[in-house]
Amino acid sequence: MTPPIVAVVGGGQLARMMAPAATELGVILRVLVESPAAASALPAHETVIGLPKDPQAIQELLAEPRPDVLTWEHEHIPAEVFAAAEAAGVPALPGLGALTFAQDKIEMRQRMDALGLPNPDWAHVQTEDDVASFLASHGGEAVLKTSRGGYDGKGVRIVREPSEASDWLAAAAEGGPRILIEAKVPYTRELAALAARSPSGEVVTWPVVESIQRDGVCSEVIAPAPGLTADESREAREVAARVATELGVVGVLAVEMFDTGEHVLINELAMRPHNSGHWTQDGSVTSQFEQHLRAVLDLPLGATDALAPVTVMANVLGGSREDLPSALSDVTDPAAKIHLYGKEVRAGRKVGHVNVTGADSDEVYRRAVDAAAIVRDGGAA
Amino acid sequence: MTPPIVAVVGGGQLARMMAPAATELGVILRVLVESPAAASALPAHETVIGLPKDPQAIQELLAEPRPDVLTWEHEHIPAEVFAAAEAAGVPALPGLGALTFAQDKIEMRQRMDALGLPNPDWAHVQTEDDVASFLASHGGEAVLKTSRGGYDGKGVRIVREPSEASDWLAAAAEGGPRILIEAKVPYTRELAALAARSPSGEVVTWPVVESIQRDGVCSEVIAPAPGLTADESREAREVAARVATELGVVGVLAVEMFDTGEHVLINELAMRPHNSGHWTQDGSVTSQFEQHLRAVLDLPLGATDALAPVTVMANVLGGSREDLPSALSDVTDPAAKIHLYGKEVRAGRKVGHVNVTGADSDEVYRRAVDAAAIVRDGGAA
Repeated sequence: MTPPIVAVVGGGQLARMMAPAATELGVILRVLVESPAAASALPAHETVIGLPKDPQAIQELLAEPRPDVLTWEHEHIPAEVFAAAEAAGVPALPGLGALTFAQDKIEMRQRMDALGLPNPDWAHVQTEDDVASFLASHGGEAVLKTSRGGYDGKGVRIVREPSEASDWLAAAAEGGPRILIEAKVPYTRELAALAARSPSGEVVTWPVVESIQRDGVCSEVIAPAPGLTADESREAREVAARVATELGVVGVLAVEMFDTGEHVLINELAMRPHNSGHWTQDGSVTSQFEQHLRAVLDLPLGATDALAPVTVMANVLGGSREDLPSALSDVTDPAAKIHLYGKEVRAGRKVGHVNVTGADSDEVYRRAVDAAAIVRDGGAA
Repeated sequence: MTPPIVAVVGGGQLARMMAPAATELGVILRVLVESPAAASALPAHETVIGLPKDPQAIQELLAEPRPDVLTWEHEHIPAEVFAAAEAAGVPALPGLGALTFAQDKIEMRQRMDALGLPNPDWAHVQTEDDVASFLASHGGEAVLKTSRGGYDGKGVRIVREPSEASDWLAAAAEGGPRILIEAKVPYTRELAALAARSPSGEVVTWPVVESIQRDGVCSEVIAPAPGLTADESREAREVAARVATELGVVGVLAVEMFDTGEHVLINELAMRPHNSGHWTQDGSVTSQFEQHLRAVLDLPLGATDALAPVTVMANVLGGSREDLPSALSDVTDPAAKIHLYGKEVRAGRKVGHVNVTGADSDEVYRRAVDAAAIVRDGGAA
């Protein structure tokens, strides 16, 4: 008996939700957490307390019995972690080469262009003149982004005047993250395509989902995306599979996309299990968390078929209920699959989600949203 | 944040498989295990090392922060455990009153008779004359059982001569378990009906399954039981619901039954998640493990609908493969959901199972059996 050991950098809910999959597969999950109160600390099979930038903690994570692989649940991984893994003879997956494209939006856009994959118009901007020039040729309004460090709506702003970019441009000139500007795409909705790839090169994709955002944060996901044409679905899945292959991603990759009504354009990449894939826990033969473990261990990948005509995932963002576990008594819908992350409630913080599967899209959507509202606030949406 | 704590007596795979469900619900699972190598030790959120008969270990299991409830994964629970839980103000569920009927087959048969539920002919036997008399009126062949302590074919024997009962009768006369004899029912197959009940009295049942036994051990389970009439299905589910209610069971209850082709007869009861319910992990909206936690915590129960037309569970009994995790690489069927228990392989020991869901019963059965054979021996069935 030599169970595989997967080391994970990250104390959040994504590492937490790898634990059930690891338990079922008989895989040992060893997690680096920032504190014993981290979301992944209790469910992990083994824990190391420390930060990714702490060399001692990383050595402990890589200690004997050596993990078969090291992976991570967020993109803020110092290059030293990869170096330490290499020195220990432990593959770190996805690798630093791939990670760069999830960490840096300019690198990503350049690479997508080089691959002929569907980007919105964009430019690297260094001066207000660059911004003015882009605005002039794109209807006077565009999306300004920091190339690194943004998430959940942070590091993104709509600009109509070059002066609105001045603080970020100044910071970039002083060594801060570079700045890019993107055309404001006239999209009808946001989609996400989830893929997984193993080191052997096997690639699978799940049905394409619609991702509904509120205030820049994912609110609900509908799987599959309602009314998506077969052509668009194929296009989106091909884009995700191609990105995974061309960038050498290992594990789960989420490609967030804009749906223009006829085509898809790439918005962002995430190289890890992703909020847009939480529906797979209850709605697909293989969840993204099991698949991520399978992929980084180079095991045969599991089937990605949906288990029901429709699955809706509704996020629980921190609201008026502070004692989240008390919600378990209040949600009486027998179809509501509740997932709580064991995190302290703070306003707007992702603290859980609800999945509902069924046949009728509107009904399933309503039930998921209602259940999530009860978890959050104790009342209907 | 005050997550519910569920204390579980038992280090085996049933407690192990409660851990993923507990993690998703944000429930803390505190498990009493006989050793750190127990199947449930790593996945448990908190562990106490010790035996159920060790008062100190039970005190640790019940220590502050007090668990909300204490439950168990096997029926060999000393009465002292219930007394200790009561003294600590922690409900122990299912309770000792219900447990008796799972521990003692004579108590169970008497109670089923009293409730008018479908027993095969049976008798409590104390002498060879009692056995001879029963054999004479039941075709010269019957099933002898010890009332306590049997499982997986142990404590059961077919008898044709009263002398074949002599050793067990002698042991019973000296204070060993009492002996009962049952008519050899001309059944066409074995069924199992799974129910769950909460302290509030809510009762749910899952689709009735066919359980295929080899050498007295469950080999495969087909959900739902192929070709079962609506009448028989309703009858079996009603029997399970009635047993749960009348015996005051809290948690998951499995009623193993004989299918005579027209009716069902009760074979055995198990008051815990059961092998015949492992299919629910991948084939039902709510798994028996989540449901057990919901029930003992008196939470609303989850939906028991099947997610696919058919799910087949194939047990992995210890075979020629000693390094079980190596099987993860060898099973290439993307539909095979592999569950390994982290146990040392011994011949015939239950060390894992495989679930496959799909539309075609024969195909799904073949795929599940093939995958389990690969896990066990590395080759086809």
